Amino acid sequence: MLHFDCDYMEGAHPEVMRRLLETNLEQTPGYGCDSHTERARKLIRQACDATQAEIHLLVGGTQTNATVIDGLLRRHEGVLSAASGHINVHEAGAIEASGHKVLTLPSYDGKVRASEVEAFIDGFYRDETWPHMVAPGMLYISHPTEFGTLYSLDEMEALHAVCQRHGIPLYLDGARLGYGLAADGNTLSLPDIARLCEVFYIGGTKVGTLFGEAVVIPRPELLPHFFTLVKQHGALLAKGRLLGIQFETLFTDGLYRQIARQAIRTAMKLKKALLAKGYRCYIDSPTNQQFFVLPNREIDRLNQYATFELWGARGEEESVVRFVTSWATTDEQIDALIARL
Amino acid sequence: MLHFDCDYMEGAHPEVMRRLLETNLEQTPGYGCDSHTERARKLIRQACDATQAEIHLLVGGTQTNATVIDGLLRRHEGVLSAASGHINVHEAGAIEASGHKVLTLPSYDGKVRASEVEAFIDGFYRDETWPHMVAPGMLYISHPTEFGTLYSLDEMEALHAVCQRHGIPLYLDGARLGYGLAADGNTLSLPDIARLCEVFYIGGTKVGTLFGEAVVIPRPELLPHFFTLVKQHGALLAKGRLLGIQFETLFTDGLYRQIARQAIRTAMKLKKALLAKGYRCYIDSPTNQQFFVLPNREIDRLNQYATFELWGARGEEESVVRFVTSWATTDEQIDALIARL
Amino acid sequence: MLHFDCDYMEGAHPEVMRRLLETNLEQTPGYGCDSHTERARKLIRQACDATQAEIHLLVGGTQTNATVIDGLLRRHEGVLSAASGHINVHEAGAIEASGHKVLTLPSYDGKVRASEVEAFIDGFYRDETWPHMVAPGMLYISHPTEFGTLYSLDEMEALHAVCQRHGIPLYLDGARLGYGLAADGNTLSLPDIARLCEVFYIGGTKVGTLFGEAVVIPRPELLPHFFTLVKQHGALLAKGRLLGIQFETLFTDGLYRQIARQAIRTAMKLKKALLAKGYRCYIDSPTNQQFFVLPNREIDRLNQYATFELWGARGEEESVVRFVTSWATTDEQIDALIARL
Amino acid sequence: MLHFDCDYMEGAHPEVMRRLLETNLEQTPGYGCDSHTERARKLIRQACDATQAEIHLLVGGTQTNATVIDGLLRRHEGVLSAASGHINVHEAGAIEASGHKVLTLPSYDGKVRASEVEAFIDGFYRDETWPHMVAPGMLYISHPTEFGTLYSLDEMEALHAVCQRHGIPLYLDGARLGYGLAADGNTLSLPDIARLCEVFYIGGTKVGTLFGEAVVIPRPELLPHFFTLVKQHGALLAKGRLLGIQFETLFTDGLYRQIARQAIRTAMKLKKALLAKGYRCYIDSPTNQQFFVLPNREIDRLNQYATFELWGARGEEESVVRFVTSWATTDEQIDALIARL
Repeated sequence: MLHFDCDYMEGAHPEVMRRLLETNLEQTPGYGCDSHTERARKLIRQACDATQAEIHLLVGGTQTNATVIDGLLRRHEGVLSAASGHINVHEAGAIEASGHKVLTLPSYDGKVRASEVEAFIDGFYRDETWPHMVAPGMLYISHPTEFGTLYSLDEMEALHAVCQRHGIPLYLDGARLGYGLAADGNTLSLPDIARLCEVFYIGGTKVGTLFGEAVVIPRPELLPHFFTLVKQHGALLAKGRLLGIQFETLFTDGLYRQIARQAIRTAMKLKKALLAKGYRCYIDSPTNQQFFVLPNREIDRLNQYATFELWGARGEEESVVRFVTSWATTDEQIDALIARL
Repeated sequence: MLHFDCDYMEGAHPEVMRRLLETNLEQTPGYGCDSHTERARKLIRQACDATQAEIHLLVGGTQTNATVIDGLLRRHEGVLSAASGHINVHEAGAIEASGHKVLTLPSYDGKVRASEVEAFIDGFYRDETWPHMVAPGMLYISHPTEFGTLYSLDEMEALHAVCQRHGIPLYLDGARLGYGLAADGNTLSLPDIARLCEVFYIGGTKVGTLFGEAVVIPRPELLPHFFTLVKQHGALLAKGRLLGIQFETLFTDGLYRQIARQAIRTAMKLKKALLAKGYRCYIDSPTNQQFFVLPNREIDRLNQYATFELWGARGEEESVVRFVTSWATTDEQIDALIARL
Repeated sequence: MLHFDCDYMEGAHPEVMRRLLETNLEQTPGYGCDSHTERARKLIRQACDATQAEIHLLVGGTQTNATVIDGLLRRHEGVLSAASGHINVHEAGAIEASGHKVLTLPSYDGKVRASEVEAFIDGFYRDETWPHMVAPGMLYISHPTEFGTLYSLDEMEALHAVCQRHGIPLYLDGARLGYGLAADGNTLSLPDIARLCEVFYIGGTKVGTLFGEAVVIPRPELLPHFFTLVKQHGALLAKGRLLGIQFETLFTDGLYRQIARQAIRTAMKLKKALLAKGYRCYIDSPTNQQFFVLPNREIDRLNQYATFELWGARGEEESVVRFVTSWATTDEQIDALIARL
Repeated sequence: MLHFDCDYMEGAHPEVMRRLLETNLEQTPGYGCDSHTERARKLIRQACDATQAEIHLLVGGTQTNATVIDGLLRRHEGVLSAASGHINVHEAGAIEASGHKVLTLPSYDGKVRASEVEAFIDGFYRDETWPHMVAPGMLYISHPTEFGTLYSLDEMEALHAVCQRHGIPLYLDGARLGYGLAADGNTLSLPDIARLCEVFYIGGTKVGTLFGEAVVIPRPELLPHFFTLVKQHGALLAKGRLLGIQFETLFTDGLYRQIARQAIRTAMKLKKALLAKGYRCYIDSPTNQQFFVLPNREIDRLNQYATFELWGARGEEESVVRFVTSWATTDEQIDALIARL
């Protein structure tokens, strides 16, 4: 049976495993005060061209979002997000559990528009009852989005500009950032993101590590007591060096980009084959998540050989499905799936 | 340089690493729905003689405490704990951050007394202003405690009885539980703990895994939506199978007890040597943490060869220090330290 | 200048003031343990035909909503509400501040539909990722709504039925309940509401008192420690007798209904006059809030004589405005406004 | 029967009631945007000699404490308080419910010592694990304390200095402030308090109003969005003018001080009589709360004529009792009590 359900079905990239094994009996201090973490930080700063950046390595995405957002907002503020944003749907209310409202914007295949962010904030302060309402205190975006789509550099510049104009931080959830950076046609680099965002994270869990998300704060004075907040949110790993070693490995010799590229290559091969078969994209994604409309009986037939996610019905006869590739997807696997189409 | 600072300086027990490597490219569903986690649950249920128990595998101790306590308490309730309890001191206010007060009891080398729990609760309800105060809604204990001490079976029966009498759950933080179970003179077994506690966790981070704490809920109807709470607290690991594989390994062929025993053996060897040298225990601990009073100049001398924790001054000339062994401590290491005493 | 901005521009009904003055130097215990509060509770129980009901008197609407919702929900749950609901818009995030998400439903002039509540809950549990999402834990409605509209008895029966089916409580925000009960064509009585809702409150602030909202819990075992929660939310008035005296007065000799009826009478007189002038309702409200579309130049002209709320633009030439009457509105005032139309 | 249980047994001072009645049918905007509130603010600023101060009028003490503390602290911080402080005991966990730990200091008849505040903060940052702990983010004191005692000007200067040194705000809970200002031997004035504290409140509930506490923020940039926080905490009164009218009255022609003085005069008369009878003070209080040790049989006898609070047992034969006077206590009442001693 083939599996294209998601991008966290395997363990870690073999090189990551090799390094974890190799360093296993080293004795290091805990909580990220070890030399591997220090080296990972240095490598990430270099990759982001952000020499002053503070880097914190956390375990998973939901805890990272909750901790960062809690750190950036004051109590009277909420976070702007696409209605489809992960924080608004699939984090079990983690943002609200730390006291903050998610203020929703329309989602365009997972993306928000700078003009609508502007309109929301303008409209908010034009309503004279605004002091009775939750103030928009930051903007959350994901890149790639939950639908595999990407912001262009121009779109990011526009989001940055509107945030600057209103004095609110821009935070980018990069759970799948590697796949965005490696996508064909991508116009955004890590240094661009570090320049345009107040905080962002570089996802490891879905891009080669066992787990781990690297939070980058280019101008660290913005989040002065982040370490304690990480601890308070239960997001501080005792053996921080496990995160350090993994990110050190990913950011050595371009491994992060190289393994992400593999996922893109297999995803594009599949996309091409599906289009050639006459199926149509539900969303036109350049990354490792492919959303297609397939006839239900074709889905049933394929399910004999492969698992993938049923995204929702489209009328009586068709459904949207999602195929996901990852750093671990091989050409053999993708060819075997294509052979069954 | 030798290191006796804490019990999370290394990675994982080699057998755990071997299994992680061996299973690395298996494809499994996420969030603990894989067969390794299922098997780990079964093995833990057997070890606890608790066939109905629900088992959740979380990443770290602070997140486990915050999630369990948040799940057990209603909004008007707080958690009883020794003033020295980890939740009251070293979790950066995680309990309060989810809305609950820590109600403190005197600490006797880290332990609380059933009689004082009883007195607290009686006194609370005897004060007619009690509806204006935070009600004691559960009891938190750690075993071994932060000071390495252990509850006896009798003491645990007494704590259980007082909790039953007042209808509040008893929760045991077992971050170092393995070292307690393996200690000389220990009278508490896993089945005892499962019988006497409403919730407890079996620590992995400090006892052989890379990370991981296994929450055991012997009567699961007590915490009906715990999975969602774990997610909300950011404590749900995407690749849950990493936890499953590690606990599966620990609970196969008695590995958990065997590796804990090694830490006890080395700790006792060190204790004996320190006593033989004429030093006195600050706390008489039967587990892997040894607290001794040493002359300051002796500490300075030893620090040339070994690191360990300075716990606090005792007058001008002496200080309390903590030596910690773990599953990874070798006889060579402990002999080398003893040779320097 | 005439004022029709809102229904809390004056102090209290003269009879309420008379009683406050008359009892001013009585000495009573605090926190609602006085005989006036006891008598108010008895009168409200009688009016609701709910002999077992627990009654708590709080000061204002936002604190009442936040306290009740916090008491009804478990940590993993959120509250269903019309997107236009007061808790979702004008309470500055009070619900999220106590840790809960507001789950929004479409608003039909402020009302929600039982079929859509059903569809939301069904859809929620049909999505297999539901344990990662905030569960719908209760339904919040307001009656009259923020737009002056009313649920019929049939609609309330349907909402009750869907809540029962899914085992979630129904909570009715009755900030303006008096005006609903007194409206022409109203089909809902206090005993109906007490039968169909798990919790509701009878608003005083907008209907004759200086302040005060009476929370009714027909089956009090649902909220066992509500008093402490009221205290925790800072919603417990030291001199609780002030609330007792006011509600005692309102529920003596039918005063509550009688003064609400006065507001309805003047509102209907104004509505009739506006319709006769050829203006059209923006929302067809049978209660004390009237929403009409008026030409902007007519609004400007009227503003020389009267204040009222500008609700929003309708194209270039027209706007929606809101006129509000209250128990304090006199025939002289309404006639003076009509004369200026 | 005479009553000396507490200082909130009556309604409001007759002059306050007269003004509420007189203004009852005035039409004003809500939420504190009326001219009475504006005038009250001006009068309070004058009384405090704090021309730039922002003044917010809230309803009760617990909500005021919770809102101010939530506004002053960042998420990783807690509030220093005497263990006996109202926020640590009798507010049902309101501080923790908004996410913050109360960090306790020893209580000396309700007071904290500057030297111990200093030692706490020094000790905190000397412990190298401090980033894992809740940082002391502000100091809470009450004046008069829960035990009727007062800080001297020197003591306040010292507390101010230690707070300044460590960059944390000093907040004074003035629920009974009037009685402190009017006490014999008091050395603190309102301008002193406004100079030495970052935030404080002037209590109305216990000193002449029906309810109401005036929060004074001498340098308002410290709490920039306090209005929204007040709303979020459910502490914003719709008819804010009720607060405005009451404080306007209290701060016209020295009424606040004059009525507080009456409570002090009667309290001192009682104290003198009790001492003359040979009873001893449990705490030597110069304000309206008097704590005395009385034989149990004398307490039983007195309870035939008067109610007062039983504070706790002193051995088998004696108990501590509390007598409280207020602005409403008359010479007739106090003489009647003295006659029964």
